[in-house]
Amino acid sequence: MEEALLKLKHHFLETVDITDEEWKYISSHFTFKRLKKHQFLIQEGMNVPHEFWIVKGLVKSYFLEESGKEYILQFALENYWVSDFHAYQNHGISTLNIDCLEDAEFLVMSFDDREKMCVEVPALANFFRIKSTKGYISLQQRVMGLMKDSAEKRFNDLVEKLPNLVQRVPKKYIASYLGVSRETLSRFSK
Amino acid sequence: MEEALLKLKHHFLETVDITDEEWKYISSHFTFKRLKKHQFLIQEGMNVPHEFWIVKGLVKSYFLEESGKEYILQFALENYWVSDFHAYQNHGISTLNIDCLEDAEFLVMSFDDREKMCVEVPALANFFRIKSTKGYISLQQRVMGLMKDSAEKRFNDLVEKLPNLVQRVPKKYIASYLGVSRETLSRFSK
Repeated sequence: MEEALLKLKHHFLETVDITDEEWKYISSHFTFKRLKKHQFLIQEGMNVPHEFWIVKGLVKSYFLEESGKEYILQFALENYWVSDFHAYQNHGISTLNIDCLEDAEFLVMSFDDREKMCVEVPALANFFRIKSTKGYISLQQRVMGLMKDSAEKRFNDLVEKLPNLVQRVPKKYIASYLGVSRETLSRFSK
Repeated sequence: MEEALLKLKHHFLETVDITDEEWKYISSHFTFKRLKKHQFLIQEGMNVPHEFWIVKGLVKSYFLEESGKEYILQFALENYWVSDFHAYQNHGISTLNIDCLEDAEFLVMSFDDREKMCVEVPALANFFRIKSTKGYISLQQRVMGLMKDSAEKRFNDLVEKLPNLVQRVPKKYIASYLGVSRETLSRFSK
C-alpha cells in the first residue's frame, strides 16, 4: 500500500500543493483494494459509499439493460477516479456496474471522509474542484461527439486521448462504447 | 446589480457557509452584464476569460457546423453557471456560441479571480467543487441518455428536470437539442 500511496501523493501534487503534514492526514483515510480481472468494483443495486483511485489496471463502467445489452459509459485506467458518482453523491443505489478488464489495484476513500477532508484541507477541495471541472469538460466533449460525430471520428478521438487503451481493451467493448457493431468498428480500427 | 448580488449570495449559501466578510470580498470580483434577446454572450473564435452566472433569462449553448447546422449542447437559465468551459479552463478559443433566447442578466467572474479566490476562500473552492461534481453527474446521465434512450424518453427527462423550460424555448430548439425533426418532436410533445 505504501507504494500506491506514494503514487497518489504524486497525483495530488501535479495539481495542488499539499504539505507533508496534510498528506499524512489525508493518506490515513485511504484503504487499499485489489481485484482480479472480471471481478466487480461496483454492482448494480449496491450502496456506493466509496470512490476509487486506480493505482493499476483497467475497468469499465456500464449500464446493463434488462435484455442483457451493455452500454459502456467509460473506460478508466491508472490515475482515474471511478465510482457510480450519481449514487455516491446522492447516497443512492448504484445503477451502474464497474468491473475489471485487468487485475487491478485501488485506493479507496469514503464520501464522508472526502467531504470532511475537503473542509479541513482547502488544497484537497481545490484538487477535487479542478478534477471535477476537467471531468465535466471532457464529458461535454463526449456529448458533442455523440450528437455530431461519426463513430469513426469518435474512435479516432478516443485513440488520441488514450493511445494505449485500444491495445488493452477487447474490440467488442470498444464497439459497445462507440455504439456500433464489431464489423463496423473493424472497418476503421486497423 | 445589488439585487443580483443578493440572489448570488443566496445561491452560494444554499451549498456552503460563507461569512459576511468573505462575501464582501467575493462579491467585489463580479461585474454585471445585461443582454437583449438574440445577443451573444460568447461567439465562436473568441477568447473566453469569463464565466457567467445567470441572474435572469435563458440562453442556449451550441456548436455550429460549417453547413450551418446547430447542435445544442445546453439550455441554461436562472442560477446556472455558463461559459465555453473548455476554452475558459484552457485559455483557448471558443468553439461554442452562447446566445440569449430571452433578455438576460448575468454576473460575470474572470478565470483568474476564480482561481485566486478559490485558494483564498476555501468555502468557495468547496462551492465550485460540489457544483462541478453535480454538473459532471448530470452530464453522465445525458451521455447515458444519448446512448440508450429514445428521443421521447429524453424529452420526458428534460421536462421532468426543467418543467418550465419547454414553455420558454421554441420547439425548433428543443428538437435540435434532442437531435430530431420538429415533426418527430410534435408526436410526443403534446
